[in-house]
Amino acid sequence: MSRALLVVAHGSRREASNDEVRALSALMAEKAGNDYDMVRTAFLELAEPLIPDGIEQCIRDGADEVVVMPYFLSAGRHVAKDIPEEVAPKQAQYPGKKIRIAPYLGAADGIAELMLSMSQKGSE
Amino acid sequence: MSRALLVVAHGSRREASNDEVRALSALMAEKAGNDYDMVRTAFLELAEPLIPDGIEQCIRDGADEVVVMPYFLSAGRHVAKDIPEEVAPKQAQYPGKKIRIAPYLGAADGIAELMLSMSQKGSE
Repeated sequence: MSRALLVVAHGSRREASNDEVRALSALMAEKAGNDYDMVRTAFLELAEPLIPDGIEQCIRDGADEVVVMPYFLSAGRHVAKDIPEEVAPKQAQYPGKKIRIAPYLGAADGIAELMLSMSQKGSE
Repeated sequence: MSRALLVVAHGSRREASNDEVRALSALMAEKAGNDYDMVRTAFLELAEPLIPDGIEQCIRDGADEVVVMPYFLSAGRHVAKDIPEEVAPKQAQYPGKKIRIAPYLGAADGIAELMLSMSQKGSE
């Protein structure tokens, strides 16, 4: 059983922002331990790979399960509608694979503690 | 010494998204313990209060120190330029108060762990 985590961000015209997400995914891959065999990045728009291509790459690299994790802070249209619409065709295409969407980051219980901890750090 | 934490989000035309941020601030206020005497919310645009008004309210309510915490995931123009430009006039107006900007959420070391933990939860 090979498991992939696909971090999905909005995507930006500013490539440095896309690279920030890719760096986060790389850090997550280091920390994932046995939870995931690969951690990849995809974007809803404006950057590559797009979500369907990101899922496709995970499957080509051997993933039996792909967890799509929205790197979003609020439950807006992107999280509620756009991301599921990008994922659905891949779920239909690969009925033998487990492809699911995890809750978005902003829904995490730990955000409040993380914000409080971060607020104690120096200004930048 | 009264300390205020001002959570600053972008602001959305979708009021439910703004309310999500207000709910986060309320949760942070519960968890803040002795670190902050008040936790408030402000928005860069599209929702109220705007950042200068948010700072003003903290000071009117007795804050000697206001920590402005950007609830943003990437270090784009909003974090690098727009938020500091909104904060600067208040810093100039209140030289006796300590008004500083904390690092933005996306820069937090704990984001990777939080994402990994969140990814294990059920889909929604």
